[in-house]
Amino acid sequence: MKLALKEGWKYQGLTYPNPAVGCCIVSQDGEILAVEAHKKAGLPHAEVEALKSAYTKLTHDTKIKDLTSSADIHEYLKENHNNIFKNCSVYTTLEPCSHVGKTPSCADLLCAMGVKKVYVGAQDNNPEAACGNKKLKDSNIEVESGILETESKELLYPFEAWHKKSFVFFKWAQRLNGTYDDGIITSKESRKNVHDVRDKCDLLVIGGETVRVDRPTLDARMVDGKAPNVLIYSREKEFDKTIPLFGVEGRKVIISDSLDEIKNYKNIMIEGGANMFEATRDIVDRYLCYVAPKLGGSKVFQTNKQEFEILNILQEDEDIIMWLKKRG
Amino acid sequence: MKLALKEGWKYQGLTYPNPAVGCCIVSQDGEILAVEAHKKAGLPHAEVEALKSAYTKLTHDTKIKDLTSSADIHEYLKENHNNIFKNCSVYTTLEPCSHVGKTPSCADLLCAMGVKKVYVGAQDNNPEAACGNKKLKDSNIEVESGILETESKELLYPFEAWHKKSFVFFKWAQRLNGTYDDGIITSKESRKNVHDVRDKCDLLVIGGETVRVDRPTLDARMVDGKAPNVLIYSREKEFDKTIPLFGVEGRKVIISDSLDEIKNYKNIMIEGGANMFEATRDIVDRYLCYVAPKLGGSKVFQTNKQEFEILNILQEDEDIIMWLKKRG
Repeated sequence: MKLALKEGWKYQGLTYPNPAVGCCIVSQDGEILAVEAHKKAGLPHAEVEALKSAYTKLTHDTKIKDLTSSADIHEYLKENHNNIFKNCSVYTTLEPCSHVGKTPSCADLLCAMGVKKVYVGAQDNNPEAACGNKKLKDSNIEVESGILETESKELLYPFEAWHKKSFVFFKWAQRLNGTYDDGIITSKESRKNVHDVRDKCDLLVIGGETVRVDRPTLDARMVDGKAPNVLIYSREKEFDKTIPLFGVEGRKVIISDSLDEIKNYKNIMIEGGANMFEATRDIVDRYLCYVAPKLGGSKVFQTNKQEFEILNILQEDEDIIMWLKKRG
Repeated sequence: MKLALKEGWKYQGLTYPNPAVGCCIVSQDGEILAVEAHKKAGLPHAEVEALKSAYTKLTHDTKIKDLTSSADIHEYLKENHNNIFKNCSVYTTLEPCSHVGKTPSCADLLCAMGVKKVYVGAQDNNPEAACGNKKLKDSNIEVESGILETESKELLYPFEAWHKKSFVFFKWAQRLNGTYDDGIITSKESRKNVHDVRDKCDLLVIGGETVRVDRPTLDARMVDGKAPNVLIYSREKEFDKTIPLFGVEGRKVIISDSLDEIKNYKNIMIEGGANMFEATRDIVDRYLCYVAPKLGGSKVFQTNKQEFEILNILQEDEDIIMWLKKRG
């Protein structure tokens, strides 16, 4: 389940309107056959990705690799599984979905595969998708729920907040010693990741000073994504309109000395420095922090005291990407 | 091998006069039976710890758990293994030792267990211990060497530097935003880890200003360890001798405006802030950085530019512990 969680976190923020979910499949002998995650809307759910990987590993039949639509993978697996999964256990951070939405139901697929046991992290509170556990049990599949439940709920939290009302997160990038001036800080991979996260937001909030100093574009061009609307939080209403962010087509730019506009959006990323951090401390759900393993610079992320719990650390590229939660 | 490396890094700095080594045992079916490391001198080597764990997992015979001496575990395994390891693969970050030192030879034990295959990360350059691979091959065990070799050599590096001449590392602790003033920064677990690392050092180097301001003890009391000698790097030779570090029994305190004294020691930890970082940049092999996920404080780890490669990140407790290597 730890591996499933870790894999799910890689795609945190990228899966809307679906939750981030990770899934791990283990053979009867304890071999890890697959560790996969739901990567983005339109792509298969974590369970389907994992069954696909595990199928390839067990059968060496690579035809399934070319299938990308969830419906096609479902169909292929149903026709060709030959009960190879009958002694396998499935670890999924979220109760498998039971409804047929954009993709067929994962619970139905797991039933059809006749897996031995499904370990579930968090239960699904979405009434449309829920009852996956029941479906599995009705099909004589063992189900054990509540495995690493706290951690599984943390992975699910941004989606649930977004689903209920809205999810507000604060993103910042810094060097190891807390500085964020003096040129580009993070690696290209990290900046691409930011663009990917931005693409899924409907509002970016940024401070007026940052707009004047950095003259940013604030789009998602590195991933050919869409540019969210921007709220410039500023007392001063006059800005040089040649600053690139104003020139992005189809984007609305709001300049306001109030954060009230946030209420009209669902997935809101606040980007900024220490001042924005202080100004938005009470409305932020989670923090996304990019740390480049470098020293240097002079302007420091200097705030009042705040302790965090580290929800996840990702270090695939040279930088560290952390999701944090306020403590206390 | 990745799991073996990760486990080995947990004990980096704690295994002298032995190297840090990790070992993972995988069944015929791909199940991970054990992931273990060499924890400290006098305790079993990584391979022995891993065979012990895997034996318990496979047999449910828990008698072996009470055995702590390497010789006893060797003997018990040789008597009771019943060929249960005959289809297992062993991943070890360092070539298994072939000589009988404080503990019997790991290569001999692996031969006696009749494991199927041994994957080796780095070769052993220590002529006394080397030839493990040859011993295995002579016993008809498949050996594949050079698996994640670069990473395995990084894990081994501090030991090799120490063995050849000396290993000098710089340790600092900071909050997420680079500050290191304003009270205790890291968690109790992190501070215990520092004491554990200190216990294995023969010299601590610290700046005069830190001594005056922090009035530290610089011992290893949290782990009942020994307090290394201290070199206070300072132009000013007068210190208040009631500062606790002067009162530690059996310790030599050197006050000098030169770092030459370092040449007389083998495992040297430099503790300090940004000034010490700059003063010792050219003589430091590796960096050990503790990051508490907190904001606040005001004095920042402010240095000239330096980029690092992250060799390992450990996050078991609330803090992050990183081993870093200078880039460029």
